[in-house]
Amino acid sequence: MSVIGNRKKTEQEYLEIAVSLAKKFAEDAAERDKAGGTPKAQRDWIRESGLLKLIIPEEYGGDGQSWTLALRIVREFAKEDAAVAHLFGYHLAVLANFNRVGTAAQRKHFLTKTAENGWFWGNTANSRGASKLTGSWENGKYILNGVKKFTTGTPDSDRVMLYFRDANTSETLQGVIPRDRAGVTVHDDWNGFGQRQTGSGTVTFDNVALEEDEILKENESYGKDGYSPPLTQSVLTNIYLGIGLGALEAARKYIHEHSLPYALSGVEAASRDPYILRKYGELWAELKGAESLADQASAQLDRVTALGARTSEEERAETAALITAANVQTGKASLDAANRFFELTGTRSATTDNGFDRYWRNVRIHTLHNPLDYKLRNIGDWALNGTPPPLPVAGVNT
Amino acid sequence: MSVIGNRKKTEQEYLEIAVSLAKKFAEDAAERDKAGGTPKAQRDWIRESGLLKLIIPEEYGGDGQSWTLALRIVREFAKEDAAVAHLFGYHLAVLANFNRVGTAAQRKHFLTKTAENGWFWGNTANSRGASKLTGSWENGKYILNGVKKFTTGTPDSDRVMLYFRDANTSETLQGVIPRDRAGVTVHDDWNGFGQRQTGSGTVTFDNVALEEDEILKENESYGKDGYSPPLTQSVLTNIYLGIGLGALEAARKYIHEHSLPYALSGVEAASRDPYILRKYGELWAELKGAESLADQASAQLDRVTALGARTSEEERAETAALITAANVQTGKASLDAANRFFELTGTRSATTDNGFDRYWRNVRIHTLHNPLDYKLRNIGDWALNGTPPPLPVAGVNT
Amino acid sequence: MSVIGNRKKTEQEYLEIAVSLAKKFAEDAAERDKAGGTPKAQRDWIRESGLLKLIIPEEYGGDGQSWTLALRIVREFAKEDAAVAHLFGYHLAVLANFNRVGTAAQRKHFLTKTAENGWFWGNTANSRGASKLTGSWENGKYILNGVKKFTTGTPDSDRVMLYFRDANTSETLQGVIPRDRAGVTVHDDWNGFGQRQTGSGTVTFDNVALEEDEILKENESYGKDGYSPPLTQSVLTNIYLGIGLGALEAARKYIHEHSLPYALSGVEAASRDPYILRKYGELWAELKGAESLADQASAQLDRVTALGARTSEEERAETAALITAANVQTGKASLDAANRFFELTGTRSATTDNGFDRYWRNVRIHTLHNPLDYKLRNIGDWALNGTPPPLPVAGVNT
Amino acid sequence: MSVIGNRKKTEQEYLEIAVSLAKKFAEDAAERDKAGGTPKAQRDWIRESGLLKLIIPEEYGGDGQSWTLALRIVREFAKEDAAVAHLFGYHLAVLANFNRVGTAAQRKHFLTKTAENGWFWGNTANSRGASKLTGSWENGKYILNGVKKFTTGTPDSDRVMLYFRDANTSETLQGVIPRDRAGVTVHDDWNGFGQRQTGSGTVTFDNVALEEDEILKENESYGKDGYSPPLTQSVLTNIYLGIGLGALEAARKYIHEHSLPYALSGVEAASRDPYILRKYGELWAELKGAESLADQASAQLDRVTALGARTSEEERAETAALITAANVQTGKASLDAANRFFELTGTRSATTDNGFDRYWRNVRIHTLHNPLDYKLRNIGDWALNGTPPPLPVAGVNT
Repeated sequence: MSVIGNRKKTEQEYLEIAVSLAKKFAEDAAERDKAGGTPKAQRDWIRESGLLKLIIPEEYGGDGQSWTLALRIVREFAKEDAAVAHLFGYHLAVLANFNRVGTAAQRKHFLTKTAENGWFWGNTANSRGASKLTGSWENGKYILNGVKKFTTGTPDSDRVMLYFRDANTSETLQGVIPRDRAGVTVHDDWNGFGQRQTGSGTVTFDNVALEEDEILKENESYGKDGYSPPLTQSVLTNIYLGIGLGALEAARKYIHEHSLPYALSGVEAASRDPYILRKYGELWAELKGAESLADQASAQLDRVTALGARTSEEERAETAALITAANVQTGKASLDAANRFFELTGTRSATTDNGFDRYWRNVRIHTLHNPLDYKLRNIGDWALNGTPPPLPVAGVNT
Repeated sequence: MSVIGNRKKTEQEYLEIAVSLAKKFAEDAAERDKAGGTPKAQRDWIRESGLLKLIIPEEYGGDGQSWTLALRIVREFAKEDAAVAHLFGYHLAVLANFNRVGTAAQRKHFLTKTAENGWFWGNTANSRGASKLTGSWENGKYILNGVKKFTTGTPDSDRVMLYFRDANTSETLQGVIPRDRAGVTVHDDWNGFGQRQTGSGTVTFDNVALEEDEILKENESYGKDGYSPPLTQSVLTNIYLGIGLGALEAARKYIHEHSLPYALSGVEAASRDPYILRKYGELWAELKGAESLADQASAQLDRVTALGARTSEEERAETAALITAANVQTGKASLDAANRFFELTGTRSATTDNGFDRYWRNVRIHTLHNPLDYKLRNIGDWALNGTPPPLPVAGVNT
Repeated sequence: MSVIGNRKKTEQEYLEIAVSLAKKFAEDAAERDKAGGTPKAQRDWIRESGLLKLIIPEEYGGDGQSWTLALRIVREFAKEDAAVAHLFGYHLAVLANFNRVGTAAQRKHFLTKTAENGWFWGNTANSRGASKLTGSWENGKYILNGVKKFTTGTPDSDRVMLYFRDANTSETLQGVIPRDRAGVTVHDDWNGFGQRQTGSGTVTFDNVALEEDEILKENESYGKDGYSPPLTQSVLTNIYLGIGLGALEAARKYIHEHSLPYALSGVEAASRDPYILRKYGELWAELKGAESLADQASAQLDRVTALGARTSEEERAETAALITAANVQTGKASLDAANRFFELTGTRSATTDNGFDRYWRNVRIHTLHNPLDYKLRNIGDWALNGTPPPLPVAGVNT
Repeated sequence: MSVIGNRKKTEQEYLEIAVSLAKKFAEDAAERDKAGGTPKAQRDWIRESGLLKLIIPEEYGGDGQSWTLALRIVREFAKEDAAVAHLFGYHLAVLANFNRVGTAAQRKHFLTKTAENGWFWGNTANSRGASKLTGSWENGKYILNGVKKFTTGTPDSDRVMLYFRDANTSETLQGVIPRDRAGVTVHDDWNGFGQRQTGSGTVTFDNVALEEDEILKENESYGKDGYSPPLTQSVLTNIYLGIGLGALEAARKYIHEHSLPYALSGVEAASRDPYILRKYGELWAELKGAESLADQASAQLDRVTALGARTSEEERAETAALITAANVQTGKASLDAANRFFELTGTRSATTDNGFDRYWRNVRIHTLHNPLDYKLRNIGDWALNGTPPPLPVAGVNT
């Protein structure tokens, strides 16, 4: 689907595909949120759309599109279904990881195969969990045993990336396996009150083989000769933003279709209430400011991705600070919109059937990914003292 | 239980009963929140405690206690279970209604019977619903037909108060019936995402008889010769406050028992994190300010209740403004605490099993009872222009 | 100065001129703020810089530069001296007014003369003041008598634009005169606690002649066939933003050069205090979000300026909403930064000598230009209902 | 003036004196704020009122009144003149210091003399300045040399308390001298942008004699056997609160007397504007919550003052946390009121002549006394971990 006839798709055409998918997600997003589990049909629609190879370089059979476009698609998905957006966004982040770990051959291999086969990647590389999965080197392969938590996207994924600890050396290593490899059990035990279809539960490993060519060594030049900008935060930024924008649009519809004016307001429709107008405007302006900053961060991400290792130390730090600022501002604006949503729509909107509380549950849980206060400290330390924000490292959410 | 041996209970003893009940509510509050339905056992424990007659005057067989104490008990309940607190608080509010409607004989009758029989009252007197229940005067009684929504506390109640419209005159009247009267069907269809055990669903009326002595005429002197302070807002105030205080206490326990320090924080325990300390202090100070104002409003409620019709116009307005301010400030502080709770406790606390999201769901839905902006306008109009805040009237939440 | 050798200046070169001027303004900005009056030297430096013709089309002898650049220069000035930025920004806004009033010949005449002579324009076209200046038609000219207030930039200006009321028809008209025309008295009575060198005081008119070719009739097609985007709000946006950014930079310097760590903080320098880092980061992120939105609004301004009358109704409304949102967000972020500045720098920084309170005084007074709540309402009415924000009209700040 | 005829004054009568003085302060408070310097006449009116001995125990010739009353008077003064309130409040705080330092005989001596002679005390015991004033022990007295900054209230005071460092032992000592002792020079160089008549400038000491009986040794039992609650924070609390309440009252008057409705508001008077009503109500509710907490803290101060050394460790910590919370909440509410004041009153109110910016300047500078973030941390550390807030020690603002 990456060409139309003989030509490449335009950005607008990609966006139309994304919006069209998002509309399909929307049909039962509230119900699926209540059900939890895995959005199998939605994942398959994404597989069929061709979007899984969006950011894979053309030399590896991908579409070679920009982060600006990819993150915009995450945002569009999140307007209707933040869990599906999360799955798609983490797929992107795992692919981007190949800039940071593994050999050039591995990078080529896995990206090419992903483009060819439409692999949907999952993530078992969560923070703080490395120590609970260990690998013993036996007969030219690692035998993995242990458990991983917060394995977002692992159910129904084709390949997963994982951290583990070498039982002898205690070194942390990264690896890739098919999700259905013998000994891997994916548990349906994700219990978060938000992002409920992300499958962020437990995976257990019982004598799972990891072949030599599946081991991804940390690229030692990362942070020095190589450079991979902090992508996960950008994915989250666009999920937050999508949630906020989606909430505001849902409120708009509800106000027009269902809300009654307050009995003592003296206005004929809720949509004419001076306080609802003011509050809607306030939330809209906050989200608009956050959106602008998110767009600026996306553009910067594309700029430094193109520069790669030539990105200066100064610009690396500035990029990280900008991305973190966008993450903070979108999180703040969307949490505010999700929280005050009901002051716009009124008591009768606050039902489990409507499911509008999922905006708050989703953005609330997701903005906990890394602590707000430390993100602000990192920004401040850079802006005040020029200290580069900490680099993403294995097992720590920065 | 209102005397211990031959003497009256002290305030401290009443509070101990309340706290002891609250601890029992706490045992499965999170589970019951998920289950919804009616907290039958908890209601029965309240029945057995004797607290249902707490504010009934001693001349009618009650304990004649103060609003300060009664609202403090609502608050204690709400720390552990905001739905049960709601049921108890609305019981109090319905009883207080007899100051405003009905004859002196009816007041005596219903309050005495409540004290004697330990009746738990429910509420079908919700806003905006009067017009959907009509009564036809036939053979010396009204025959009621129609439907009521938001009938908080009606399931498992002994008596309910209701508004209806006279089919001929269109006059709005109030009445009292046993919940199990023939033709009354209480539906288990409350669908709010918060306060889930309040049973605030639908009641249908199919040729339900309302006898002449069960009709409560609006006391015409209310607002002039008589005076009943705005009580419902005070009940809500203390529910909000209890939710916030309960959330802060739950966070405290969780931080000490489960939270891990942030990997880059450099501190050994989450309870030593400088940002967690600061945020905990901020939420505590906000709640403390709100609590002081709630206590001041309770004391004022007792003062004007004692004055009754002798309360001056100025003091009526001042009381209403003060009670509204307490309502606003407790709602704000508790919503903030419930929302930022997870920034204190961290990602891993945000599970459906822990159920900590119920603090937000409960305070979020309940603070929608009447619009924040109009409460602020009413306060402002009084403080700036001396305009008395609007009196509670049938079918409008002020 | 608009060409370097034989070529046009680049945007970067214009910005360097602006930054270089700003640095000169900075030398005594705090002292001049205390003194009030007119920044005569600073105005002359701007005259000499050639920037006064920046946005005049090349066909009229100007530099034909974009609003993006012009507003960026306003912002750079405001970082160091918000009053001078105000004078320059209002000069731009008065010139832009010729899109909306007057004939094509007048537009050509006044813009060409401005480019030729380096005229610095002042503003006596303030809101609510039209009725106090009346003109009597006598012998082919108007004789003006009356008083105007809030005449920003009039002292030391070369030409002023003014509103007056026709004594016979009560029609509101606009006109242009040299500031030194006989009968015009500019009073040094501006008494605002902020923006103290803007000369926003009183001008009295005593039988002042306004010639026929100096009358600017409202262009009747404005809002229909013609189109002039809401520029004043954009100028203010960039002044607000400059104040906030300037404050943050001043705080940075002060913290490094003067602040002492809090005695009980356990850190060796204020710049390492965890709470100062967090707060600095928070204000920086807020300003960064506002800046992005301001940049987006500037780009939109250039887009619709190029479209002119071809701008669709929808895009006119969207432009106005976007510009208002940028105005609101920059005002909010900068007011917050100016207010909390001292929590970063500490007690000893809060002196009249340092003059850091001028950031707050400047942004506080300037953000009152039009009421925040109505700006939010206008945004909300557009975003919720599609209502176009009100057009700027004579005598009303929208 | 402490008795009326033969009886003691009631609290109400003391308050009437205070309000009557405050009204006199109000007459030229805005002008005196601009002028700076010393409010000599106002200080003398306080001297004449007898209020300087308000809290001195009756056994020492004072009125033996409560902290609740004394702090309420500080608050009443601050509504009209926060600088005079500051001078009176610090006089109280210096007297309270005699609970903590000096011998019983010194306490008796200085308090009795203060009551007899109507001494107005000043403060040269500022933080961080001890090391710059040293004393050499010569011939049975200390000879003091050096400089003190932030010497609030020293100009026109009768006695001053000061910290100095023993040149031999480096021990920090406290002492008392008449302000006019030979060698003391009080400089009129206070340069803060707020609290401008507090005379918080520099005092230089040139071979100033401090007699043996003027040395106040730190009471070693303080914090153990003795106990003096944290009073300075309470004084500040009530100054903050008075500023906020005074601002709101000034806004009320201005809105009714001067404000014009916004041209597009559709209302006939600013006092009917829905957004002004809402905002006024919001600020009023915030201040009301802060006021309640301040009253609760005052009552607690009286309770532990009565208990003295019998105050339990737990209650000492709780008192400090409560007082700090009141300090934080009043500071926050008043800063917000002072900042948004102008959104209520409009552009034309923002003049130097009106001087309404002094509310912001006063509360802004004064809330810097000790860092907000550390106050919140101290509260949090107590509420979360039970850690007692730090005790006031020489030279550190807690």
